[in-house]
Amino acid sequence: MAALDALRARLAELTDLSLLGHLAAWDQRTMMPPDGSPARAHQLSTLQRLSHERATADEVGEWLGELESTGDLTDVDRDLVRLARRDWDRDRRVPIDLAAELAQAGAEGQDVWQAARAADDFSAFAPALRRNIELARAYAACFADEFAGPYDALLADYDFGLTAARIQEVFGRLGEALPPLVAEAVQRPAPAPLQVPVAAQQAAVTSTLARLGVLPDSWRVDVSAHPFSTNMGQRDSRITTRYEDGQLESVLAAMHEFGHSLYERQIAPELARTNLGHGTSMSVHESQSKLWENHVGRNPAFAGVIAGELTAGGFAVEPSTLLAALGRVQPSLIRVSADELTYPLHIVLRFELELALIEGRLDVADLPAAWNDGMRRLLGVEVPSDAHGVLQDVHWAAGAFGYFPSYALGTLIAAQLWEALEAAAGSQDEALAAGDVSAVRRWLADHVHHVGRRLDTEPLVTAATGRGLDVEPFLRHVTHVATR
Amino acid sequence: MAALDALRARLAELTDLSLLGHLAAWDQRTMMPPDGSPARAHQLSTLQRLSHERATADEVGEWLGELESTGDLTDVDRDLVRLARRDWDRDRRVPIDLAAELAQAGAEGQDVWQAARAADDFSAFAPALRRNIELARAYAACFADEFAGPYDALLADYDFGLTAARIQEVFGRLGEALPPLVAEAVQRPAPAPLQVPVAAQQAAVTSTLARLGVLPDSWRVDVSAHPFSTNMGQRDSRITTRYEDGQLESVLAAMHEFGHSLYERQIAPELARTNLGHGTSMSVHESQSKLWENHVGRNPAFAGVIAGELTAGGFAVEPSTLLAALGRVQPSLIRVSADELTYPLHIVLRFELELALIEGRLDVADLPAAWNDGMRRLLGVEVPSDAHGVLQDVHWAAGAFGYFPSYALGTLIAAQLWEALEAAAGSQDEALAAGDVSAVRRWLADHVHHVGRRLDTEPLVTAATGRGLDVEPFLRHVTHVATR
Repeated sequence: MAALDALRARLAELTDLSLLGHLAAWDQRTMMPPDGSPARAHQLSTLQRLSHERATADEVGEWLGELESTGDLTDVDRDLVRLARRDWDRDRRVPIDLAAELAQAGAEGQDVWQAARAADDFSAFAPALRRNIELARAYAACFADEFAGPYDALLADYDFGLTAARIQEVFGRLGEALPPLVAEAVQRPAPAPLQVPVAAQQAAVTSTLARLGVLPDSWRVDVSAHPFSTNMGQRDSRITTRYEDGQLESVLAAMHEFGHSLYERQIAPELARTNLGHGTSMSVHESQSKLWENHVGRNPAFAGVIAGELTAGGFAVEPSTLLAALGRVQPSLIRVSADELTYPLHIVLRFELELALIEGRLDVADLPAAWNDGMRRLLGVEVPSDAHGVLQDVHWAAGAFGYFPSYALGTLIAAQLWEALEAAAGSQDEALAAGDVSAVRRWLADHVHHVGRRLDTEPLVTAATGRGLDVEPFLRHVTHVATR
Repeated sequence: MAALDALRARLAELTDLSLLGHLAAWDQRTMMPPDGSPARAHQLSTLQRLSHERATADEVGEWLGELESTGDLTDVDRDLVRLARRDWDRDRRVPIDLAAELAQAGAEGQDVWQAARAADDFSAFAPALRRNIELARAYAACFADEFAGPYDALLADYDFGLTAARIQEVFGRLGEALPPLVAEAVQRPAPAPLQVPVAAQQAAVTSTLARLGVLPDSWRVDVSAHPFSTNMGQRDSRITTRYEDGQLESVLAAMHEFGHSLYERQIAPELARTNLGHGTSMSVHESQSKLWENHVGRNPAFAGVIAGELTAGGFAVEPSTLLAALGRVQPSLIRVSADELTYPLHIVLRFELELALIEGRLDVADLPAAWNDGMRRLLGVEVPSDAHGVLQDVHWAAGAFGYFPSYALGTLIAAQLWEALEAAAGSQDEALAAGDVSAVRRWLADHVHHVGRRLDTEPLVTAATGRGLDVEPFLRHVTHVATR
């Protein structure tokens, strides 16, 4: 099996290069002095070019051809070959010049966007956005024979197997069911916002994470402008949070990032250093962060634990006060600060718009008006300026189309997994009240994490819950939140 | 000039990979959770293997052949081609199996050594040392036609162009002149050791480094078990220090590491991302750290500055008291804690012994006795146990022969450069007393740093000082220290 050994060696090499890229990016966001940027950009680009060259080399195709005509593979190796073929085919379909243009346009687009947002001037951003859309369509055209439409081809980079039609179906139900719930929730008196000193937040982050299993032997917790999670190997997880205001975003963001990291840590060790040894998709990844943020962190049963840690950290608070603050519903302009109930509606809007842009049904010039209409329709808010509207997110500026849906899909999958988990392992109320998450970790390991990339999003959800992607568990969850 | 472009692109790539290796090693020593080790070992080994493959590829030889027959190169490009040829030839002469065996024996040797040192049992270490010596001789034999003896071939990895004969000449003078100075110094009453609280040390490290030019825009200062310096690019310098006892090692170690980093930062920017864009040799590198440690940090004119920073940090001390503590001379068993005057004698001994081992004139079984004899002869101390004698250093366990001389050579070159600097730029006493090191930085940039790897050790020393390697400036310096 020389071909299998060669393929596995190449996949191990690519994993190592990818993890070095994780390290370089983590360092850039947490440790690097600012003047290190130009050299770091060179290093990252060299890493990417070398990885691409080694991933798409002719010899990989030869090994795959040989292995595909072999009957004698284990189940894991069959999946390994299947995914390696998929990745190799996709990577090789994109002409090198187009890939370079995409990277450059994405980088330039972010610079242009930053200036345009600061100046609240959509027209300054429009040409860059137009170019990104054209390039995304050119990219999608590389896979024209494989997908029903260009958006599906883009989606495949984030969530292989999902389609625009499937998302329309799911998001249609959200767009219909959520607004009345929001309208009902805002009728209730708003709880007073908390003003938690940073020291108490830090104490609560540290001690809450320790309860979840974040030990210094194999974790780091740092601070960055935007919280994120990464890993340099299965036993080297690094998450960040931020302490910006008196709210408890620090604790919830830390739990969110913990969810991403736990996923990577609990993948079967025998998949490490292969193409199967990481999270399967953006939306499943997001389901893991959302599960810990929404279903553990905001769980009434867990409120006593966080309140206790805050109290021990010097900020005395009642669990019920904390819970009310965490459950506050308020339609607002900005996605990243939206609450649990309104958040998916921000995504529904972005999906509708980017689908129309990519399919050529919406012109860039008409985008701001379409944005503002959608915000009125879905969230009932008036957008006062493009800076607080269509210019708020970096994704389109960076050329990332098809990425947004995973944020809402993850939220839905989280609710669906949580129902399945409690159905199988029993109510977690008692365990959570005692700060014990071991059953949650174990169920996720067995039903979601362990399999790595061997199952794509919807097959994985089906295997874990017995049903395909389903909106109802999330709607039940938020109905409960909105009416408790 | 397609060959030149191709060569420069490859050298840029190799630089990026090497800087990623710096990052991975820095992270491992300062930030990485301990359980990250196995994955990090994979990443480093992949990086090394890929770099070796890309550095020694056939096409590099083709580009070099083409460029060597071109008359039309700039001075820089001629040096670039000359050094690329040297590196390519050296790398390709070592059979891949031997390189792997060297790496493995070095790693295993360190494990064996650690256990043997803990058990104070030289005989447990002897077989590993014997194997390392044999492999080092096999490695040297790859270059047999280019060097007068095997030790010279090993030396070329650290200090290209230096020879055992030249070092014997220099160290012979040291071995003759230093012991009487030491004997004289120890007759004088020993100053009381300082007991400086860690907080005051930290304040002094931070503010002293800031005076030298360590600004957060492009530097980091962290803590590690052994102080070191590294860089991720010319504008991203990272040094570490440690706070282990009540002494001032923390401040001097920080200045030492600053010297290493400043060297890399002040290399001509047009040499960045080429094979010429880093320090030229181990001994010149060590000369830069020693210059800042010995000639600035321990300078009577600078004592008021450090004393002032310590006082501001909460530990009131007179400059004269500080200076006396920093200038204390005391022959001792352990190299890494030796003073300025006795330190080179530790190196003279190691050089004599490793030269004899590599040349086959000394058997491993006779090494402990030879060590103890040498310590008596050179430093007048009795070695009570191998753990405090021949087993104290990791270098031979790791298979590094030819490395030790650079520690003493650097000390000598530092003194020689300092004399030349003050002869050219005038006495620095007044500037140092005011905490102003700008003239020192500038002179070093122009006469040592700027040229990068374009000159080897001794040609560089000659260009900077008008003379080849010379022991007398160091002897004048320590005579002054010993008698002030």
